[in-house]
Amino acid sequence: MTTSVLPITTSTSHTPPPSPWMQARQQLQYACDKLGYDDAMRVLLETPRREFTVAVPLRKDDGTIEVFIGHRVQHNSSRGPTKGGLRYSPDVNLDEIRALAMWMTWKCALVDVPYGGAKGGICIDPRAYSTAELERVTRRYTSELLPVIGPEKDIPAPDVGTDEQTMAWIMDTYSVNTGYTVPGAVTGKPLSLGGSAGRGGATSEGVVTVSMLAFARRGIDPRYARAAVQGYGKVGAGAVRLLHDAGVRVVAASDQYGAIYNPDGLDIDAVQVYFETSGKLAGAPGTVEIDRDSLLELDVDLLIPAAVEGCSTRRTPAEFWLG
Amino acid sequence: MTTSVLPITTSTSHTPPPSPWMQARQQLQYACDKLGYDDAMRVLLETPRREFTVAVPLRKDDGTIEVFIGHRVQHNSSRGPTKGGLRYSPDVNLDEIRALAMWMTWKCALVDVPYGGAKGGICIDPRAYSTAELERVTRRYTSELLPVIGPEKDIPAPDVGTDEQTMAWIMDTYSVNTGYTVPGAVTGKPLSLGGSAGRGGATSEGVVTVSMLAFARRGIDPRYARAAVQGYGKVGAGAVRLLHDAGVRVVAASDQYGAIYNPDGLDIDAVQVYFETSGKLAGAPGTVEIDRDSLLELDVDLLIPAAVEGCSTRRTPAEFWLG
Amino acid sequence: MTTSVLPITTSTSHTPPPSPWMQARQQLQYACDKLGYDDAMRVLLETPRREFTVAVPLRKDDGTIEVFIGHRVQHNSSRGPTKGGLRYSPDVNLDEIRALAMWMTWKCALVDVPYGGAKGGICIDPRAYSTAELERVTRRYTSELLPVIGPEKDIPAPDVGTDEQTMAWIMDTYSVNTGYTVPGAVTGKPLSLGGSAGRGGATSEGVVTVSMLAFARRGIDPRYARAAVQGYGKVGAGAVRLLHDAGVRVVAASDQYGAIYNPDGLDIDAVQVYFETSGKLAGAPGTVEIDRDSLLELDVDLLIPAAVEGCSTRRTPAEFWLG
Amino acid sequence: MTTSVLPITTSTSHTPPPSPWMQARQQLQYACDKLGYDDAMRVLLETPRREFTVAVPLRKDDGTIEVFIGHRVQHNSSRGPTKGGLRYSPDVNLDEIRALAMWMTWKCALVDVPYGGAKGGICIDPRAYSTAELERVTRRYTSELLPVIGPEKDIPAPDVGTDEQTMAWIMDTYSVNTGYTVPGAVTGKPLSLGGSAGRGGATSEGVVTVSMLAFARRGIDPRYARAAVQGYGKVGAGAVRLLHDAGVRVVAASDQYGAIYNPDGLDIDAVQVYFETSGKLAGAPGTVEIDRDSLLELDVDLLIPAAVEGCSTRRTPAEFWLG
Amino acid sequence: MTTSVLPITTSTSHTPPPSPWMQARQQLQYACDKLGYDDAMRVLLETPRREFTVAVPLRKDDGTIEVFIGHRVQHNSSRGPTKGGLRYSPDVNLDEIRALAMWMTWKCALVDVPYGGAKGGICIDPRAYSTAELERVTRRYTSELLPVIGPEKDIPAPDVGTDEQTMAWIMDTYSVNTGYTVPGAVTGKPLSLGGSAGRGGATSEGVVTVSMLAFARRGIDPRYARAAVQGYGKVGAGAVRLLHDAGVRVVAASDQYGAIYNPDGLDIDAVQVYFETSGKLAGAPGTVEIDRDSLLELDVDLLIPAAVEGCSTRRTPAEFWLG
Amino acid sequence: MTTSVLPITTSTSHTPPPSPWMQARQQLQYACDKLGYDDAMRVLLETPRREFTVAVPLRKDDGTIEVFIGHRVQHNSSRGPTKGGLRYSPDVNLDEIRALAMWMTWKCALVDVPYGGAKGGICIDPRAYSTAELERVTRRYTSELLPVIGPEKDIPAPDVGTDEQTMAWIMDTYSVNTGYTVPGAVTGKPLSLGGSAGRGGATSEGVVTVSMLAFARRGIDPRYARAAVQGYGKVGAGAVRLLHDAGVRVVAASDQYGAIYNPDGLDIDAVQVYFETSGKLAGAPGTVEIDRDSLLELDVDLLIPAAVEGCSTRRTPAEFWLG
Repeated sequence: MTTSVLPITTSTSHTPPPSPWMQARQQLQYACDKLGYDDAMRVLLETPRREFTVAVPLRKDDGTIEVFIGHRVQHNSSRGPTKGGLRYSPDVNLDEIRALAMWMTWKCALVDVPYGGAKGGICIDPRAYSTAELERVTRRYTSELLPVIGPEKDIPAPDVGTDEQTMAWIMDTYSVNTGYTVPGAVTGKPLSLGGSAGRGGATSEGVVTVSMLAFARRGIDPRYARAAVQGYGKVGAGAVRLLHDAGVRVVAASDQYGAIYNPDGLDIDAVQVYFETSGKLAGAPGTVEIDRDSLLELDVDLLIPAAVEGCSTRRTPAEFWLG
Repeated sequence: MTTSVLPITTSTSHTPPPSPWMQARQQLQYACDKLGYDDAMRVLLETPRREFTVAVPLRKDDGTIEVFIGHRVQHNSSRGPTKGGLRYSPDVNLDEIRALAMWMTWKCALVDVPYGGAKGGICIDPRAYSTAELERVTRRYTSELLPVIGPEKDIPAPDVGTDEQTMAWIMDTYSVNTGYTVPGAVTGKPLSLGGSAGRGGATSEGVVTVSMLAFARRGIDPRYARAAVQGYGKVGAGAVRLLHDAGVRVVAASDQYGAIYNPDGLDIDAVQVYFETSGKLAGAPGTVEIDRDSLLELDVDLLIPAAVEGCSTRRTPAEFWLG
Repeated sequence: MTTSVLPITTSTSHTPPPSPWMQARQQLQYACDKLGYDDAMRVLLETPRREFTVAVPLRKDDGTIEVFIGHRVQHNSSRGPTKGGLRYSPDVNLDEIRALAMWMTWKCALVDVPYGGAKGGICIDPRAYSTAELERVTRRYTSELLPVIGPEKDIPAPDVGTDEQTMAWIMDTYSVNTGYTVPGAVTGKPLSLGGSAGRGGATSEGVVTVSMLAFARRGIDPRYARAAVQGYGKVGAGAVRLLHDAGVRVVAASDQYGAIYNPDGLDIDAVQVYFETSGKLAGAPGTVEIDRDSLLELDVDLLIPAAVEGCSTRRTPAEFWLG
Repeated sequence: MTTSVLPITTSTSHTPPPSPWMQARQQLQYACDKLGYDDAMRVLLETPRREFTVAVPLRKDDGTIEVFIGHRVQHNSSRGPTKGGLRYSPDVNLDEIRALAMWMTWKCALVDVPYGGAKGGICIDPRAYSTAELERVTRRYTSELLPVIGPEKDIPAPDVGTDEQTMAWIMDTYSVNTGYTVPGAVTGKPLSLGGSAGRGGATSEGVVTVSMLAFARRGIDPRYARAAVQGYGKVGAGAVRLLHDAGVRVVAASDQYGAIYNPDGLDIDAVQVYFETSGKLAGAPGTVEIDRDSLLELDVDLLIPAAVEGCSTRRTPAEFWLG
Repeated sequence: MTTSVLPITTSTSHTPPPSPWMQARQQLQYACDKLGYDDAMRVLLETPRREFTVAVPLRKDDGTIEVFIGHRVQHNSSRGPTKGGLRYSPDVNLDEIRALAMWMTWKCALVDVPYGGAKGGICIDPRAYSTAELERVTRRYTSELLPVIGPEKDIPAPDVGTDEQTMAWIMDTYSVNTGYTVPGAVTGKPLSLGGSAGRGGATSEGVVTVSMLAFARRGIDPRYARAAVQGYGKVGAGAVRLLHDAGVRVVAASDQYGAIYNPDGLDIDAVQVYFETSGKLAGAPGTVEIDRDSLLELDVDLLIPAAVEGCSTRRTPAEFWLG
Repeated sequence: MTTSVLPITTSTSHTPPPSPWMQARQQLQYACDKLGYDDAMRVLLETPRREFTVAVPLRKDDGTIEVFIGHRVQHNSSRGPTKGGLRYSPDVNLDEIRALAMWMTWKCALVDVPYGGAKGGICIDPRAYSTAELERVTRRYTSELLPVIGPEKDIPAPDVGTDEQTMAWIMDTYSVNTGYTVPGAVTGKPLSLGGSAGRGGATSEGVVTVSMLAFARRGIDPRYARAAVQGYGKVGAGAVRLLHDAGVRVVAASDQYGAIYNPDGLDIDAVQVYFETSGKLAGAPGTVEIDRDSLLELDVDLLIPAAVEGCSTRRTPAEFWLG
């Protein structure tokens, strides 16, 4: 958990972190070197099987037209249909989507489910458009991809900037096309449309379950363990709660504005109340504010990276999982 | 034919010519300005409807694996199925394909056929691979695009680096998938598979037919006209022959190695025999060699640009057609 | 169980009962009022999504032709494929089918299965036609509906005038069309074709199970309870038997010809033997005959309505379920 | 052209005219009697093959929801795909659509084109809704019918209350579903989308062409013939012009407000100018106003009924064509 | 026309003629030898691409069940969809169908239409079954072949034992499956269902047209030419009539019972009247009866073989066409 | 287990054994006689529903072409999709495949799984061709059968001459055609592609499980039982091991070269080591060699026939299972 084993990540804090795609390729290179795979095999594992870029014209509520660019990358379908999130953000670009798709391939393979990896995105700031506009954008994007998605081909899921409602629109667009309701066209849809119970907290639970297993393997008693959690979104806040429930002392947490610290453990109920009121962690009762990067170097038994990718300038996500 | 009306092309010979996509966008901008279309409309007309990038793994004859990148851009299908060539070249890139696809949209609209524009390409040097390897590459590329091509959707044609045989492979791959022979899946296929008679010379004939109409409109008698032809491939050599048959005096011609000139008109039979023997024009009997760029500035009544796009550093193709 | 809460059903015995569709709409109105839904929502919930009426020409065994009218109403498919019975009766009309389809939507939603409601019918007296004729009628009706039925769209089931054999014909017609056997095209098919064990007695079991739960909730000991069962078909006779097995004293039962009563409880074995012999209940040993309507007003703990809809002139089915 | 041969049309002017479906059935009965067809055959010819009724929910521009009822009747597809208009009117009902569909079957058979008859309609007043609302209504209606329409199945066309734009919406909805542009999905689409040139005036031209043939057969010289035209819409006004161009003296014309008459022939240019200005015929220069019904009894060689069906209370359309 | 060039056909009259398949293979061998094709190519050209054998159970009018065997051979589809007749005969066997399919491939290629060759058959004596039984047999056979036939795949036509009605059943079975009328599914259908005018006499006309061309090439004046026609079915009787109309003296004709001869030419009207009355040619007025085999050795300028294949024991059909 | 009850198998050792198809039909005849089924029913049960024969051209590694014949017989699909092995052997012929398909129908029915029986084969010696050639043969054969196979229609499995790799090729060819991975297209695929764990030993386990049940029913203690196993392939060798593990004394075993015997029981570890080294059983330590046919007449409690069908000249497989 401490020393980096990936020379490619020894960048100083002065240089920008590698792009997601660069990073993902470095990780693959590292793995291929470990496994003794030659370059041809690496290129085969790296090159996405299919990439789609589509125009998404929107007639806005004010009658004007704006054209967005949407992507979908299906990285590898050897193990089954591809699956992966759909991201709405002004920063979306093909390189990022490509990296996220390859990571999905790896994730599916690691947990041995019969799926491959994909990822999609539209280059749009969802907060700048009305719900009706987002619906039209989503339906048009889905329409353009109809021949290449579906329960047997490629299955979208919510991601940054999209949610249950987005999935409901995709599912409906797809279903109108087939002529009957196809709940399997997306995951992360509303419960009332066939969504899975427990999906909301699944990532937090997974992270904490794995952490408990790691503790057990290393002979660490959770009740005497200390943890720091980077990120306080759906995953991070959930992990803080579940770690606490498991007896772990959570000594630090951070959000996009700052980090808080209490060596004796956070009063997580008080922190949560404060966060809901103020919209940030810094200043929570019984905590001192520390530098966000310092959180990553605290002397803890467990460090949970629960921010968006690329937020850690010193260690790549791979370190956490491989370290 | 003489003065450029496009300010965007007044580059000096020292700067590289704009990329095809840049050039195509400038042409669209010029047209939209003329037509009074606003920016939203221009972006709508410019953005390709769908772009596909696929991995094309090849098991080479020596057993090793190589992965190529293939593209297909469907620019606009409002007027009907898209159609456009498929290019095999190590220089293929998405920007070039995008430009060629938009030009196809315009060409189809100009001659008022119910088709839209598309273009495809694989980044491969076809001379460096065996026929069996090229067949496997072509079939795999076709397989990946199966859901989005076909007589009602998008119809490939030969282009630089591909030919009748390539189209036959695509047609067969498509037909095996549908379960029956689908000649409409490609154009430019061999005559024995349903190809169109006369396709080979169609471009030359079109160029010369248009030239004769231009002469007629301007009151020029072909028998007293002088022409220069840039390029001596399938189109250029055919145009030389047809112009000569129409009574025009062809005074200059060029290929990738040089240009030839005879102010009294080339002896085209002698030139053709020389070219077939030596593989180049320079040195043909009864001609003097001139600079290739000089050919573009000869005092002629007709200048035929029949080289690949971007070969003229002083005038863009648009000049010739718009000038 | 006693007083009607629906003012719309306070019709006297002199006026005809409301038609099924009228009745169903009144029930929906009642529910919408309770839930505070506005009229637009009520109309949306009420209007069937799709209604099909098809001509069903039959070449009869004697060579003459007769044309029947068949209906299929798919009321609401928001929750999944629609499902519902297929009725063969000379009384079939679109209003009745429409009502039954809406009731199916409600039933599926109440038991929370991912299906919507549908219903179908052919206006034919099945007793007046040979088996071969009924097969041809069924197959033709199915053929006409092929584009809109199927395991993912709409799934027929047996109802009044149809049975396992009818479902087998539908399943076969559907399967010939798809090219392979599709057991999911119908429910209620013969066991040998994939039908569900226990389907025959499922309705009786369901009615009695619910009754026992109602007793438990109200603190009634079944061994001291008294029941009356209206209808002695597959459902009614089954309920009589199962209630008796559960210790309930069944004091009255009725069929389309009359009703029987014994305040000390019917000797159900004797009643069944008598019914099988004589084809009616009236006159069964150890019983007195009473008026059919009187059965509905007996002082019992449990009244099971197991006749076709609309048979009770004083209380609508809704009373029983809502009362 | 004079005496009615259909006893079923001898209704006095005091009784309302028969409904379209009643009328159509009477016409069929009359034809079957003539042809010696028995009742079974008549019922077979009469019963529509398939009738669809669908709910068309509209979210209006003000956010509220309204549900419309749409119909489509495919009367007979023995001779090929069915075709027929789509009508938007608050008076649309299944009986009317049924009659119009049967008439389409007859029309297609009479001119011996390989099509059968269909007709559709939505019960909506198109003038009371915005273009955006009508688009949403049209697209939803089309969506619901997707499995049963198309170039090989059933082809909509414009009719009362719908136009080229409506057809463009239908074509686009259908095309999005198939994944490529399908111009054959509708007739009457805009020219720019593949519509047929000359469609606008086709009905007038047909009426006048038939009239000239009738004159020729009866030995009437058009230059000495006199005509009256009932209705001054697209068909009627066109017929007036074309008759005049053919040398026929048009002595009377009518619209929904009144009729005009000039025994020496209308000055059709002046009439047209007046009509375009005032929106009605009555008062046109050089004409006297007469009773609308009187027009039908003028002593003319040719009477053109070009109003909507049922406008003539004394003679049914059948008279004109059969008389 | 006289000496056999095929050594493989020098069988004496004592040995049975080669089977159709043997014969067809010998013809192919002969052609490959001429063309210098090696054995691998010959086997490739010879082996049918796909052969289907299906069980055709029939519930007979008397309720019993009989199972027939049906075949369909698709010999070669390289040039387009396969097409070929469907034969009902108790003698049908796979070898015969295979040969006929290969001959169809050759015929289509010779007249350069974009079709390949196929042939089908059911081993049934059509005269021994009712029309209703034949309909059920035809529909079931068609059903079994649904995935592999159709306008783009394989198109049946009438042949020995089948006719327009058979084709109408096939077309209807196919059309019910697709959901709309598909006239292109068969050729040889009734005119009222879209059949081609002139099909009935097409073979006779073709034979006589070719004969006239042969006369012209050899400088023979038809008015001085003498012809013999073997077979007096649809083709033979038609050819007799058309030759006579072209001025040729038809001196002999034969049917399955015998042959007739008149060196001065038959009185073809009298012969036809006699044949229609008596059902045979022998005994026709103004003729002498000769041995059927003698007809093949008459001294004529033209010999038309218009009987079923294999009827000539001395010369194979190939002689006539190749000789 | 001892006396034959099938009169049709009383052939002496001098006559060749009946062909598989003859044998299978005799078994069916026997069963029908027992069940009192008439001939029509027997023919219905016997006749395969569909038989396909396809040409499989192979361009060999040396550039020459060879054409193979492939078969697939779908015997009966009444109970569900058909399934059955695919055999590569130079002895493959339609009669054999037909018999094996009917046996598959029976096997599926006996164990009451919702499948019917099929079988396929290509007439090729797989040991004489390279892996690349076998791949091309397999893919082409699959391509030809695409319209009639698949998870809902007919599912191939490995058999003599084919293995996991063959199934992987079929699955991939099928999946490329559908556009997504379809693991259900074959059984017996590699575990990494979704194959079933335990499939390898399933037949041995089944044989031994059934044997143990037979012992139990007959009151035989396995520890005192003696067994002989004919065949030492995947099934036979596995059965020897499992019987030994169950305590049974295996006294004899045979392979295609000879048989070994030890009345005290084979030392199965030693036998296995010897077999792996020498490729045959004869000569294994602690055994005497006996005649292969003698093995079938040893005085044992259990005789396991685990050779290919037809290897026993004295008793048909039916004896063992029915005896």
